[in-house]
Amino acid sequence: MADPSFPDLTSPIDILVSEVGPRDGLQNVKAVMPIEARKAWISAEAAAGVREIEVGSFVPAKLLPQLEGTAEVVAHARTIPGLTVAVLVPNARGARDAIAAGAQKITLPLSVSETHSLRNLRRTHEQVIAEAAEIAAAIAALPAGERPHFEGSLSTAFGCTLEGAIPDAQILRLAEALMAAGCDEVGLADTSGYADPVSVRRLIGLLRGAVGEAAVQGIHLHNTRGLGLANVLAALDAGLTTVDSSLGGLGGCPFAPGASGNIVTEDLVFMLEAMGLRTGIDIGRLSAVRSILAQHLPGEPLYGFLPDAGVPLGFQPAGARKTEAA
Amino acid sequence: MADPSFPDLTSPIDILVSEVGPRDGLQNVKAVMPIEARKAWISAEAAAGVREIEVGSFVPAKLLPQLEGTAEVVAHARTIPGLTVAVLVPNARGARDAIAAGAQKITLPLSVSETHSLRNLRRTHEQVIAEAAEIAAAIAALPAGERPHFEGSLSTAFGCTLEGAIPDAQILRLAEALMAAGCDEVGLADTSGYADPVSVRRLIGLLRGAVGEAAVQGIHLHNTRGLGLANVLAALDAGLTTVDSSLGGLGGCPFAPGASGNIVTEDLVFMLEAMGLRTGIDIGRLSAVRSILAQHLPGEPLYGFLPDAGVPLGFQPAGARKTEAA
Repeated sequence: MADPSFPDLTSPIDILVSEVGPRDGLQNVKAVMPIEARKAWISAEAAAGVREIEVGSFVPAKLLPQLEGTAEVVAHARTIPGLTVAVLVPNARGARDAIAAGAQKITLPLSVSETHSLRNLRRTHEQVIAEAAEIAAAIAALPAGERPHFEGSLSTAFGCTLEGAIPDAQILRLAEALMAAGCDEVGLADTSGYADPVSVRRLIGLLRGAVGEAAVQGIHLHNTRGLGLANVLAALDAGLTTVDSSLGGLGGCPFAPGASGNIVTEDLVFMLEAMGLRTGIDIGRLSAVRSILAQHLPGEPLYGFLPDAGVPLGFQPAGARKTEAA
Repeated sequence: MADPSFPDLTSPIDILVSEVGPRDGLQNVKAVMPIEARKAWISAEAAAGVREIEVGSFVPAKLLPQLEGTAEVVAHARTIPGLTVAVLVPNARGARDAIAAGAQKITLPLSVSETHSLRNLRRTHEQVIAEAAEIAAAIAALPAGERPHFEGSLSTAFGCTLEGAIPDAQILRLAEALMAAGCDEVGLADTSGYADPVSVRRLIGLLRGAVGEAAVQGIHLHNTRGLGLANVLAALDAGLTTVDSSLGGLGGCPFAPGASGNIVTEDLVFMLEAMGLRTGIDIGRLSAVRSILAQHLPGEPLYGFLPDAGVPLGFQPAGARKTEAA
C-alpha cells in the first residue's frame, strides 16, 4: 500500500531535479547538521515530490564531520518509496561502503584538471580511472537488480580556477576512460562556475558525440557568476533531462577558491514548471523545507528568489496543466 | 578629434546593452543622488563602453524628486561622443521636454494591464495611445536628422501582479495601436518578473509576427524570480539584439507589489562576452562604476555575482577574441 506521506514519485515527469544539498550543501558549511535533521530534510523534500537526492558522501568522518553517519542516512532514505538514493564517493573504498549501505546511485568525481584532482582527491587521473574500474567490478559482482547506477562526474569541465581552460581532447579522453572503466554515465560539472550557455551547449554536444547520448543525461552547474539558470536552459536545449541543484543554493566547491553557489532548487523548479516542464515537485512544499535548514544551520545564508517573490498571480505549474489536459 | 576619455562607441558590436540604472534604478530608491553624481555615473559607464543609457525621466519633480534635473543630465550625456541618450516619458508633455532637452530616444510605457496602467500612469489604454500619437506628431514636426527614436514599451507583458496573465490578443492589439500611432519600435517589458524562457520566446514571436521584426529589437526583463539571464538567453534565441539592464541590479517597479530587481548589467555583459557576443563593454571598468553607486546611495543593496566572483582565469571577452581574429 502506498505511503500517504509521499506523492507518487514514479508518475511521469519531463525533467529530473536531483537534489544535492544534503551532500554538496552540508559538505561546504561549517556547522554540523544533526543526523535526524538530515533525515527530516530528505523526507520533507521527497514529500514535496523530489525524486532523486544525493544524501551524503562516503568519506572519512575525520575529513568531513558534516557527513558522518551517511550510511544511517542512506538507510532512512531507502524507506521512502520511489526515491532514488544517490551518494558521492571519492574512491573504491567509499563505493564499497555505499553499496553496503544500499545506495542506488554512486557518483565518483574525476576532476579533468589534474592539478585540481591532486588537490581535491589527492589522486592523478590514472589513479581515479583505476578506482572507477574497481568500483565497476564491485558493482558487477552484485546480483542483477541490486546494482547501483554508477556515474563519473567530470569536475572543472568548464575550466579550473588553478589551470584555467581544460582542452576538449583531455575532457573527452577522460570521459571515454571512465566509460571504458565501467561507468554507466558521465556528467559535466561546472565546479568553478565558469560555464556559459555557449560552452554548455558545445561541451554537451562534444561529450555526447564521444560517449553516446544515453551516457550523458545530467549536468551539475553552479551559480557562481549568476549564469546558473541560463546554463540550465542551454543544457535543456542540448537535450539533457537531469539537473543537479541545492535547496537554498547551499554549497559549492571549497577547493576552488572564490567558487561557491549551487543552483537553487526552488528557482530551478519554478523555471522548469513555468516553462511547462513537469518536475513532479510542489513549489510551495519545497520552499517550506527551507525552515529545516534555517533551524539547523543558523547564520548560514540561504539563496533563491522564488521563496521571497512567490509564484506569479494565477501561476499554473506544468504538472497542474498536464493533469487538466489528461 | 576623438575624446580620449571614451572608447569608440561606434565600433561593431553584436548585442546592445542598454543601461537603465540612472532612470529605472534611481526612480526606485529612496535616496536622491546628486545631479553631479548622476552625470559622473553616466560618463563612467560610457567610458567603460556602454553605448546607450536611459539617463532619466521627464516627470514632475514633485512625483519623483530622484529624477529632478533630467534635462541637465541629458545635456551632459549628449556631450559624450557616440552615446545614445535615452529617456522615459509618461506622456506627451514629458516628451516635449525630452525633445527640448535633446534626448535621442524616447520611451513611452503602456501597461498592457489596464488596471496597472490606471494605477501607474493614471491613464486608460486609449489615453496612452492618444499620448503616443501626440508624441509622434511632435517628433514628425522636427527636421529630419533631429528626430528622436520613439519606442512604446509594453509593461506587464508577461503578466501583472494585479490582473495576472494578460491575453495575447490584448497585447498584440495594443502593440499594433502603438505602431499605428507612430512608434518606431515596441518592446516587451517584464515589469512583474513573471516571464520564463518559454513565454519570452513565444511572445517575441507573436509580437514580431504582428508588427514586424524590425519593430521589435529590444526587451526589458527583470530578475525578480532569478530567471533574468535565462530569459535574456531566450530573447537572444528569438533574435533580439538589445537588452535593458541596470548597474548593480538597481531598480525594478515600485507599483507592482513584491516585484523588484532589474537584470544586473555586470552579469549580463559577462554572459554575453563569455558567449562570444561583443558588447563593446569592458567588464572591469564597468564593475568599477559600482563605487559611484555605493558612495552616493549608502545602504542601498547592489546585486550581481560577477563583481564578487571576478572573471574566470584566462577569460577572453568576445571583443578581444574577435579583435585577434581580425
